[in-house]
Amino acid sequence: MGKIIGRKLSRRRFLSGAGTVAIGAAGMTAAVSGLDVLSHAEAKAVFAEKWPWPYVKLDPEKTAEIAYNEWYRIFCGGAVVSSVFTQLREKVGEPYKSFPIDAFIFLEGGIAGWGTICGTNAGANIVTNLIIGPRISGSEDGMLMGSEMMQWYSDTSMPTFTPKEPRVKGEIPKTVSDSPLCHISVGRWMKAANKELTSPERKDRCARLTASVAYHLVELLNNWKSGTYKTTGVMPAKAYNIQSQHNCTDCHGTNVPTPPTAKA
Amino acid sequence: MGKIIGRKLSRRRFLSGAGTVAIGAAGMTAAVSGLDVLSHAEAKAVFAEKWPWPYVKLDPEKTAEIAYNEWYRIFCGGAVVSSVFTQLREKVGEPYKSFPIDAFIFLEGGIAGWGTICGTNAGANIVTNLIIGPRISGSEDGMLMGSEMMQWYSDTSMPTFTPKEPRVKGEIPKTVSDSPLCHISVGRWMKAANKELTSPERKDRCARLTASVAYHLVELLNNWKSGTYKTTGVMPAKAYNIQSQHNCTDCHGTNVPTPPTAKA
Repeated sequence: MGKIIGRKLSRRRFLSGAGTVAIGAAGMTAAVSGLDVLSHAEAKAVFAEKWPWPYVKLDPEKTAEIAYNEWYRIFCGGAVVSSVFTQLREKVGEPYKSFPIDAFIFLEGGIAGWGTICGTNAGANIVTNLIIGPRISGSEDGMLMGSEMMQWYSDTSMPTFTPKEPRVKGEIPKTVSDSPLCHISVGRWMKAANKELTSPERKDRCARLTASVAYHLVELLNNWKSGTYKTTGVMPAKAYNIQSQHNCTDCHGTNVPTPPTAKA
Repeated sequence: MGKIIGRKLSRRRFLSGAGTVAIGAAGMTAAVSGLDVLSHAEAKAVFAEKWPWPYVKLDPEKTAEIAYNEWYRIFCGGAVVSSVFTQLREKVGEPYKSFPIDAFIFLEGGIAGWGTICGTNAGANIVTNLIIGPRISGSEDGMLMGSEMMQWYSDTSMPTFTPKEPRVKGEIPKTVSDSPLCHISVGRWMKAANKELTSPERKDRCARLTASVAYHLVELLNNWKSGTYKTTGVMPAKAYNIQSQHNCTDCHGTNVPTPPTAKA
């Protein structure tokens, strides 16, 4: 049995370059030859863990509009993933069809309302690492594009995108978060706008911010698809001898601790 | 075409209670009846976004051992997901087989080394929300179990689990993070242990902590499977009028700002 699966998998690996069609062919083969469910599932697993995932260029504006509207259904992180993956489900098919997008509503409010990483940053990292691939797959671009997105998020006056038909009319105050964290990003905006968490304005600010992230994410992915992507992302842990964002003084003030370092 | 897919999907929905076998049956039907790849993929999407995912009780000790070893391959977040899902790939099959576990190495170091949410917390939330389902699927237990895991993580002297054959022999200092964030959790441990980020001891501490989280996660999931799970998780945003963890003074000191609230 193991050997049979092995041979089938080899053929599927060969076929998988053809994208969705390969899944179809593998499914057909499994059904026709009477292979059991496990072998079919094995083929799927190989496909989902083979990188990069097939990507076609998307329109940033259209993606942002989808993200904006999806915020009102599955909030920040889910909406970023959905804005890219629902289009690729249609244009490409698998493995996007098998990815459970809606589960990622839990990224809302910095993970279940805890205010940790802003869901848009988590969602952007999911997208870059699923499409380009994790760093163990041979390229660090997926991880570093995710990191670049977080730096851009921290530095940019947000939201940058205004939807064609916003649910809250007029201008929304813009703020720079200086941080990838939900608590700080939302807190700074609430202070500047003097609007409470449950206000329509705060909700629309987060929906527009989600759209802004989706827009820029697709710009970077399109560059990557063109072969012109040069990452500006870094892994901060290496620079600071501790896992960290770049603005130590924002929390620590002038009293930034020095982490233990290796003796020379 | 739409109608044909609709009928097929209805049949698959009916069959899906049988778990992996339903996928096989659906695949067979698709192949035999000559339905195209898209309809097959649609069936997969429906299956992956149908909750709860089939779960069988796992052994916490075995899960923790897997998590410990997987840390040395795909780090904290990926290892938590892998410790549960690789066992369910074997015991259940789909939709675990199609889930791209290895991509989640990017949760390392609080997302690409940025020190935000500890990867084990992100991984635990992925597992609870994928298995039990997102809150839009009808139960809030997935989200609230993820929240409960973060509170447990914050309150517990870690690591709680010692593997049978640890790579670093002997005791490892234990610390309470008081936070779900990687930067704070690792920083407090490094200070207490006086060990640098790249030391074998810090790595083994994070591997053991990952195993500890996987152990407790499976305890809760097993309770849920038994029907005895009563969550202690909450969504902190509702209590504080801002997305937040529970220890405001840890960062703010005595000067905790009051977020804008709705006028009565």
